[in-house]
Amino acid sequence: MTIFDKFRPFLDRYTLAEQMETNPFGMPFSAFTSPTRAAGNGRSLVLAGTNNYLGLTFDPRVKRAAKDAIDAYGTGTTGSRMANGSYRDHVSLEEGLADWLGMPSVVVTTTGYQANLAAIATLAGPKDLLVIDRDSHASIYDACTMSRAKMVRFAHNDPKSLDEKLAKYKGSVTGSTIVVIEGLYSMFGDVAPVADFVEVCKKHGVYILIDEAHSIGVFGEEGRGVADQAGVLDEIDFFTGTFSKSFGSVGGFCASKHEDFGRLQPLMRSYTFTAAPSPADAAAAKAALPIVRDGDDLRDRLWKSAHRVHQGLKQLGFEPCSPPSPIVAVEIGSDIEGIMSWTQLIESGLYVNLALPPTTPQNACLLRLSLSAAHTEEDIETILFAFGKLAATRESMGQSHAAE
Amino acid sequence: MTIFDKFRPFLDRYTLAEQMETNPFGMPFSAFTSPTRAAGNGRSLVLAGTNNYLGLTFDPRVKRAAKDAIDAYGTGTTGSRMANGSYRDHVSLEEGLADWLGMPSVVVTTTGYQANLAAIATLAGPKDLLVIDRDSHASIYDACTMSRAKMVRFAHNDPKSLDEKLAKYKGSVTGSTIVVIEGLYSMFGDVAPVADFVEVCKKHGVYILIDEAHSIGVFGEEGRGVADQAGVLDEIDFFTGTFSKSFGSVGGFCASKHEDFGRLQPLMRSYTFTAAPSPADAAAAKAALPIVRDGDDLRDRLWKSAHRVHQGLKQLGFEPCSPPSPIVAVEIGSDIEGIMSWTQLIESGLYVNLALPPTTPQNACLLRLSLSAAHTEEDIETILFAFGKLAATRESMGQSHAAE
Repeated sequence: MTIFDKFRPFLDRYTLAEQMETNPFGMPFSAFTSPTRAAGNGRSLVLAGTNNYLGLTFDPRVKRAAKDAIDAYGTGTTGSRMANGSYRDHVSLEEGLADWLGMPSVVVTTTGYQANLAAIATLAGPKDLLVIDRDSHASIYDACTMSRAKMVRFAHNDPKSLDEKLAKYKGSVTGSTIVVIEGLYSMFGDVAPVADFVEVCKKHGVYILIDEAHSIGVFGEEGRGVADQAGVLDEIDFFTGTFSKSFGSVGGFCASKHEDFGRLQPLMRSYTFTAAPSPADAAAAKAALPIVRDGDDLRDRLWKSAHRVHQGLKQLGFEPCSPPSPIVAVEIGSDIEGIMSWTQLIESGLYVNLALPPTTPQNACLLRLSLSAAHTEEDIETILFAFGKLAATRESMGQSHAAE
Repeated sequence: MTIFDKFRPFLDRYTLAEQMETNPFGMPFSAFTSPTRAAGNGRSLVLAGTNNYLGLTFDPRVKRAAKDAIDAYGTGTTGSRMANGSYRDHVSLEEGLADWLGMPSVVVTTTGYQANLAAIATLAGPKDLLVIDRDSHASIYDACTMSRAKMVRFAHNDPKSLDEKLAKYKGSVTGSTIVVIEGLYSMFGDVAPVADFVEVCKKHGVYILIDEAHSIGVFGEEGRGVADQAGVLDEIDFFTGTFSKSFGSVGGFCASKHEDFGRLQPLMRSYTFTAAPSPADAAAAKAALPIVRDGDDLRDRLWKSAHRVHQGLKQLGFEPCSPPSPIVAVEIGSDIEGIMSWTQLIESGLYVNLALPPTTPQNACLLRLSLSAAHTEEDIETILFAFGKLAATRESMGQSHAAE
C-alpha cells in the first residue's frame, strides 16, 4: 500500500485524456501571435478559453511597464513585503485600486488564490461562521478549511436559501459571521443577485465578502464589477479579485471599506509568508488599471462578442448554461463525449476549456468558452464554424446538445 | 463587537513599528542600483536582508529571458495550466528541474507557498499522519491545516524526538505517514541533520518531504541543497523549493522520485485553481537554473561573505543563533530594543530584517541578515561598520548583545 493508492479512482478519470494526441488538461502553447491566437501542439488555434477578457496581455503599454520594471527592480522580489520591503509598484497599485474601488484598505497578493486565503482565513477563526455559496471557487473552500471556522453552504445564487441558513445558524458561534459570494461564476458564467444578497446580510447584521475575480473589468462602471453594477458596492465589506483575467497579469488583491482590514497584513499568512509579486507582474497590473477603468470600448467589444457567440451556439442547438456573459458554457453529456467534442474543436482550430467533474458545479461535463475584447470578427466566425461542425457531427451520431 | 476586535492584542505589537519614521515591516524601496543596493525611504542602503543569495535578480541573462518572454507570450497567463494551457517555459522549467534533481516528477507552482500546499495538502488526507518539525515555515503549517490530516510536531532539528513521535503515533492513522523538514531554517539559519532524519524515516518505513526553499542554490553539488550535500538526495520522497531566493524570480516547485506524484497535478488544488506563473517569472526561473547549476563561483563568494559577517558579528560581541550560513541572525532582547536597533542600522545605511514574535522560533526578537554572492567588499564593510556602531550604542546603554 503506497500513499498514491488512494488517488487511483480520481486519476482514472484523466487516463483517457492523457492518452489523447492532445491532452485537454495539458495543452502546450508554443507561440502566440496575439491575445487570441497561438500555436498549440503544432496547430494554429483561436483561443476561446483563456479568460483574457480585455485582451491586455499583449497591450504595448502593459508590456512596456513590465519590461521597465525588470530594468528598475530586477526579476524577483526575493521574499515577503513584510521582511524584504515593498517596491514602488506594490504600493502604488494598492493606492490605485483603493481609489478605483473607493475602499481605504487594499492588500495586493502574489496570486488571486492567495487573496482569498488572506482575506477569508485571516478574518474568520474557530469562533466565527462562514456561510458560502455551494458553487464557490476552490480557493474559497480552501480558505474556509484554513480558517478553522464553522462553514455552512447555501444553495447556489439563492438569497432565500442564504436567509434560511443565517436564521438557522444564528447563535451557533460566539464570533462573527461572513457571507461569501462571487460576482460571476467561472464555470457556468452566471451572475450573482448581489443586491438581494446584500439585503439578506443587512437583515441579519452579518458581513459580506464578494470575489469578483471574473467580473472586475467586465461589469459595472469603470469595470468595478457586479456589485457596482447592482449599485451596492458601498455595502460590500470585503472584496477580492485577481490580476490574471482582465488585468493581463498574475496576482490578486483583497480590499475593504473597513480601515482596520489593511492593518491585518502582518496576520495574513498567505501575504506575510510568501514572496511579493514580481516587479514585472506588479507593474503590468498597475499599467492595466487605468486601461481597465477607461475601457468602455473594450467592454463594448467584449459584450458584443459574448452576445453573438451565445446566440450563435443556441442557433446551432446548444443550450448555454446561463444568459449571455463573457463566459459561455454548454453541457456536453459524458466525459467521453466531452473529450471527443473538445478534440474535434481543436481539429477545427478552436481552443476552449473542457471541464469535467469533480471541478464543475452539478458534476456537469462542460465545454466552456471565455470571450475577449481582442477577439476579431474572424475569430468569432472560427468559433461558430467549429461549433457548427461539432453540431453536425453530434447530430449524425444521434447525440443531443442539450444537458442530459 | 466587530470582526476586528479579536485582533487587537496582535496588532498592538505592531503599533510602535507603524509609528516609526521608517516602518521595519513596510519598507518602501524606490530605486535599485544593484542586487544589494537600493534607496529606501530616501536613504541609500546596503541590502542584507533580501534572500538574494546568488544575486540573480539583476543578472543580464535572467532579465533578458524575462523580457523576451513578455514579447513572445505576453504579460499574463490568464488562468490555470489545466484550463488555459502550458507555455514553453512552464514545461521546459519542469524538465530542467527534473534533470537537475534527478527526479522524474516536477510540478511548477505560482508561488513557493503554493508549492507546499500542492505537495503536502494533496498527498496527505484525513486518514494520514503529518509529522513536522516544530519550527516549520508557515506554509507547511498552513498545508497541514488544509490537508485535514492528523498533525504531530517533533522538537526542532531533533532526530531522536522524531523517532519517539513516530513510535508513539505509529498505528494512530490508517493511511500513510509523511515527515516534513526544511533544509535551512529561514529565521535562525540552522541546517537540518538530513541524513539522520532519513535514517529514522527508513527505520519506521515512512515518507520524507524536505522544503529546500532557502538551501537550493546554496548547498550541495550544483546547488541541489542540503539533502544533496548530506548524500541522501536519492532517499528523499518529496522535495519543495522556491524561485524567489537563489533563482531571482517568483514561484516554486514540488518534486518527487515517485513517478505517480506528477500525475496528481489535477488534484493539487493550489496548482489547478490558480493562474500559472507569468511568462516573465517562468522564463526568469528557467534562465536562472543553468546559472545556479554552474554557480560554484557564486557559492564561493556567498559563503566567504557569510563566514566574514558571522565572525565579524561575534567579534563585536553579538551571538549568532547558528553556525555560519547565508542566514545570520542575532537575538536582540525585547521588541522595543529590536525596533530601536533596526532603526539605528537603517541610519547607518544598512537594511536587515527585524523579526518579532509570533513569526519567530522560541518567540525570539531577531535582527536577521541574509548574505548574497553580489555583496561587494564595500557592502560587507558597511554591514560590519553599522553593527559596530550598534554594538557601541548598546554597550553605552548597558544592553547585552547576547540572547536574554
